[in-house]
Amino acid sequence: MNANLITAAVLVIGDEILSGRTKDKNVGFIADYLTQVGIDLKEVRIVSDDMDAIVEAVNDLRARWTYVFTTGGIGPTHDDITADAIAAAFGVGIDHDPRAMAILEEHYAKMEGAEFNEARKRMARIPFTADLIKNKVSSAPGFRLENVHVMAGVPSVMQAMMDEIIPTLKTNSQIESETVDTGLGEGLVAGALSDLQKAHPLVVIGSYPYIKDEIFATNIVLRSRDKAALKAAVDAVHALVADLKGQKQAQF
Amino acid sequence: MNANLITAAVLVIGDEILSGRTKDKNVGFIADYLTQVGIDLKEVRIVSDDMDAIVEAVNDLRARWTYVFTTGGIGPTHDDITADAIAAAFGVGIDHDPRAMAILEEHYAKMEGAEFNEARKRMARIPFTADLIKNKVSSAPGFRLENVHVMAGVPSVMQAMMDEIIPTLKTNSQIESETVDTGLGEGLVAGALSDLQKAHPLVVIGSYPYIKDEIFATNIVLRSRDKAALKAAVDAVHALVADLKGQKQAQF
Repeated sequence: MNANLITAAVLVIGDEILSGRTKDKNVGFIADYLTQVGIDLKEVRIVSDDMDAIVEAVNDLRARWTYVFTTGGIGPTHDDITADAIAAAFGVGIDHDPRAMAILEEHYAKMEGAEFNEARKRMARIPFTADLIKNKVSSAPGFRLENVHVMAGVPSVMQAMMDEIIPTLKTNSQIESETVDTGLGEGLVAGALSDLQKAHPLVVIGSYPYIKDEIFATNIVLRSRDKAALKAAVDAVHALVADLKGQKQAQF
Repeated sequence: MNANLITAAVLVIGDEILSGRTKDKNVGFIADYLTQVGIDLKEVRIVSDDMDAIVEAVNDLRARWTYVFTTGGIGPTHDDITADAIAAAFGVGIDHDPRAMAILEEHYAKMEGAEFNEARKRMARIPFTADLIKNKVSSAPGFRLENVHVMAGVPSVMQAMMDEIIPTLKTNSQIESETVDTGLGEGLVAGALSDLQKAHPLVVIGSYPYIKDEIFATNIVLRSRDKAALKAAVDAVHALVADLKGQKQAQF
């Protein structure tokens, strides 16, 4: 792999995803966002609310990829153990952070009848040396420790945190992408597509079958950091599809 | 962890998920299905169409959990490398499987104008010693090698394969689950919930915040294999919520 490539992993933390009770929407959002800005998402893991599982996954992913984004487990309840797990993964201490305490204190002071109780103070527990990640939706901050960004699991809060994080990241030159809907079954285009991939090494060509109205068809997705190379490959796919459709008609 | 617990992992294989182009729906479906039949899904990974990445993930997951389910990468195109990766992970050979060839031959013979070409024959490449997983939607089979079940990425095909696989699996006694929508912010219930979890060790109590109409509220989900223990914990949560709502009113 290109050592200069800026890469990322997402770590989703939460029993509710693994039980099927909650359907994750964060991975798709983060994947789209990273692709848009030119960061290559290379791996996703979903683990349960278990200290050892989180520590192991964080340490594995942060050593492999440029950036890690975690979602979930930073709320006020007993099953929110992400902050402690991150501290353990980095071997640093953790305590109520004065900056986070100030933000939350101010927030609850404004809410009539809301006490800044012990449980809510848990949300101010931040590993030592971490930077806070504020957000415009909830007051409870996420945090960044080296290349690991720790975010909330609630989608609107996570999305607001991503908006804060993205401008701080290095990115690759952007990938351009084009999709050709062939209207043909994958088995019909596959052979020629393999040759086409070999002839266009600067373009990554993917083939994605789908079923619509009980017809098997295929989208061809072409991706490249090189515009001219992408155009040449897209033209070649269109020519291939026209050719195959011609043959198909001739067969009937 | 209980050594007798029947566990599972899902491995999603596909660049299209990591780029955000396709939003995965298979993890949620498999999670629901496994929970329903009483198998604990413990981990999910999503990796790219890369031989080393797939081999490493498969070997890691099959050593950790009772069952592994993979989705994606078993079609006819050059980027479909899952079958080869599984063979490599197990250190077995791979070739066109006579059983799979027979199924596909019959299928394409019935389709007017469809040739059983080289690309389509790729879908009959099955690692040695594997059992086929047939399905009622497409003719191309998945396969099982030891505890690893290799399925298509197209949701309707994957779902049909899961229907074939599930009756062959060992399951745990089923988990019962109850949800209490507290209508209260997580910070308000968190403290008492921690005590409640300690008092009900046979029940796993999760707290899931959500935002609705700009109000922060919380669902409490209780899970147990013991019906009586579950009922006692659910009653305790209802009592707690009533108590907290009483206090809240008293404050205003």
